[in-house]
Amino acid sequence: MKMYDLINKKKKKETLTKEEIEFMVQGFTNGTIPDYQMSAFLMAVCLNGMNQEETAALTVAMANSGDILDLSQIHGVKVDKHSTGGVGDKTSLVLSPMIAALGVPVAKMSGRGLGHTGGTIDKLESFPGFSTTISTEQFIQNVNKVKMAIVGQTANLAPADKKIYALRDVTATVDNLSLIASSIMSKKIASGSDVIVLDVKTGSGAFMKSYEDSLALAKEMVQIGTIAGRQTFAVITDMNQPLGKNVGNTLEVIEAIETLKGNGPEDLLKVSITLASYMLIGAGIAKDVEEATEKLYQTIENRSALDKFAEFISAQGGDSKAVYDTGILPKASIEEEVGAPVSGFITNIHTDEVGMTSLILGGGRETKDSIIDLSVGIRLHKKLGDYVNQGDSLATLYANDSSKLQEAKQRFLQAYVIGSEKPVTPPYVYAVVTKDGVLQV
Amino acid sequence: MKMYDLINKKKKKETLTKEEIEFMVQGFTNGTIPDYQMSAFLMAVCLNGMNQEETAALTVAMANSGDILDLSQIHGVKVDKHSTGGVGDKTSLVLSPMIAALGVPVAKMSGRGLGHTGGTIDKLESFPGFSTTISTEQFIQNVNKVKMAIVGQTANLAPADKKIYALRDVTATVDNLSLIASSIMSKKIASGSDVIVLDVKTGSGAFMKSYEDSLALAKEMVQIGTIAGRQTFAVITDMNQPLGKNVGNTLEVIEAIETLKGNGPEDLLKVSITLASYMLIGAGIAKDVEEATEKLYQTIENRSALDKFAEFISAQGGDSKAVYDTGILPKASIEEEVGAPVSGFITNIHTDEVGMTSLILGGGRETKDSIIDLSVGIRLHKKLGDYVNQGDSLATLYANDSSKLQEAKQRFLQAYVIGSEKPVTPPYVYAVVTKDGVLQV
Repeated sequence: MKMYDLINKKKKKETLTKEEIEFMVQGFTNGTIPDYQMSAFLMAVCLNGMNQEETAALTVAMANSGDILDLSQIHGVKVDKHSTGGVGDKTSLVLSPMIAALGVPVAKMSGRGLGHTGGTIDKLESFPGFSTTISTEQFIQNVNKVKMAIVGQTANLAPADKKIYALRDVTATVDNLSLIASSIMSKKIASGSDVIVLDVKTGSGAFMKSYEDSLALAKEMVQIGTIAGRQTFAVITDMNQPLGKNVGNTLEVIEAIETLKGNGPEDLLKVSITLASYMLIGAGIAKDVEEATEKLYQTIENRSALDKFAEFISAQGGDSKAVYDTGILPKASIEEEVGAPVSGFITNIHTDEVGMTSLILGGGRETKDSIIDLSVGIRLHKKLGDYVNQGDSLATLYANDSSKLQEAKQRFLQAYVIGSEKPVTPPYVYAVVTKDGVLQV
Repeated sequence: MKMYDLINKKKKKETLTKEEIEFMVQGFTNGTIPDYQMSAFLMAVCLNGMNQEETAALTVAMANSGDILDLSQIHGVKVDKHSTGGVGDKTSLVLSPMIAALGVPVAKMSGRGLGHTGGTIDKLESFPGFSTTISTEQFIQNVNKVKMAIVGQTANLAPADKKIYALRDVTATVDNLSLIASSIMSKKIASGSDVIVLDVKTGSGAFMKSYEDSLALAKEMVQIGTIAGRQTFAVITDMNQPLGKNVGNTLEVIEAIETLKGNGPEDLLKVSITLASYMLIGAGIAKDVEEATEKLYQTIENRSALDKFAEFISAQGGDSKAVYDTGILPKASIEEEVGAPVSGFITNIHTDEVGMTSLILGGGRETKDSIIDLSVGIRLHKKLGDYVNQGDSLATLYANDSSKLQEAKQRFLQAYVIGSEKPVTPPYVYAVVTKDGVLQV
């Protein structure tokens, strides 16, 4: 088999076999296939496409290119959740303790934030002493005991995906549905969970801006997961504005805790409960969304989710007192209100610009090596459809550097569009994709 | 300017500017643009195309990437000819001395053979002592004195093309018309001639198998040459069978000499005269093909072309006696007839397989580093449309190694298709493409 012939096949719009795709992924991972051949292939894929069998074969080959996490020592059906990334997205922190409180094991590998989106691992480091780099043995032990553990990606998961992604990033071959879907799913499959619930964001702050693109990605990923033998659900949720009100690492932890206490914003609660419902259904703990929703609300009412969260923080070395008293979490030294420049309705929010505001304040990473300031961020007071009078505070910015604060304020003002007509506000959840089809919600 | 954006533009089927193409070619030549970005771009070009302005810009940028031969010290209008490659193609050896005998300077850089096609430089080395590596000064001096010099490509001509071609060769991005045309034309433009006559072969032994593809390539190259300010003509000629009867380096030299003596085969003479006519027209020595043809035939009748060839061989250190007595040229030790396996008409010749037969005998190169045997080759006795009785000789094979001979014989027999119906034989010349349009011949 020769890589030349595989490139040529895809150039001619022919279909590659599973064996050909495995040969290619293995060869590229071990270095016998050079970058310049792979990039020509990737461009051919962008322009001529791959079918679902090819995409699934690519995903599985990438998943098999490194370690496959063995979670067999964990009792019960393991569930995992993945978000395509958004601003103010702290659902993992809300739903994981709920699920765990109901006895379903959550064994989660999470990423760090990059660009305008945040990462769960960064957020959790708000707790003094919390460790995200425990050993695999400790990880499995914690899940068995606490039913919940969240660690950074330390294992050699899907190295082929890592190498291919780096190449796509510099050859303008990122925006192909099959390549995006296989990249996400290869890591999820290598992470070893039985049930995968995907949160596919759609809107101005999402990777996929349109509902159609988000739906196509959701379908593609569910198809791949199903072919790979994992129960897979995708929930398409709104990202035309930040989720909840808080953006920034510690601020988001505080909002998640408030939500577990029953004081969370409606959108965050709704999205978290919907995602968690499918995790419960996949785990066989609830037969439908109604039953799942009821059980999940109970974990808030009886505080079992909050206690579970504290237990989890403790088990990974963090100070769990902060769960009950968020005042001891890191705090920014400067607070400044952003006044509305005119009166009117919030008609549009450039959500990725809100994310950039947080990044400018120091809460996000421009490059992988940036050091982030956990305490900075934004607390939104107005969201889509709200009316403001000129001078009303749109948001509070939390900063530790006054020059960064001024730059961030400018940026934030450009993110909010104020108009005279009340807009139609987007739903929180659009649809759920299962292997059997699309449920409009 | 960033290469990433240029790849992305071509991926989106947008048009690149001249400046963008120059940036890309310069960056790739000096190594600031890596292979993997260029190969992604080349694949995007294969699938989304380039327009004529982009193709011309690419050609000129590649021509400018190295030395541009300064032929200003040569008196008169400099003419050059280039063939897209075929089997038995010795027209350069026939037409150059005719043209030179008429006082038009021929300053030719030629290549070596590779694969199933031969190269003029190899053929000329049949003359004992002949040097193909004279200095540029000597080259120009010879052209001024003898009106004819042929050397190997020693100068640093179009290094960008060389580097891009090497990458295309391993990334399945060879067969794009714009890339093929710009590759050929960049070297011709860098070679400095005022008039470029292109011999675009069509048929089973040609790079372009169909007339339509050959015509498209011819048009593209004439367009590029015209935009680059060179008088350019393309003649589409037949390669559904070898040109002339002899295939193999020394054998082809002998046939060229026989043609200059007036004993050449009709097809070789016709193709050589047609190509030479446009060289004369371009040089302003003849007003039309009729006048040019008459002048060219005179150089055979009065032997001036033969004497010019001898003068040229001498001037580059070769033994010119061989021009008048070809018996002193290298000779193979074994001669063997290939008998027709059945009676019938020659209905088809797999021309590239005839070329491969010569390669197997030792007369061609499998790789750039192969050493070739000048004396071996094939003399065809039957061509398309000829009738043979079983056992009649189809060809004589000339070899120096009996095991290679047996392999070559097998291969040769597969190249000839014998059938019961007399086929329609292809024309020698199909059409001529000028900047004003296509003349059917």
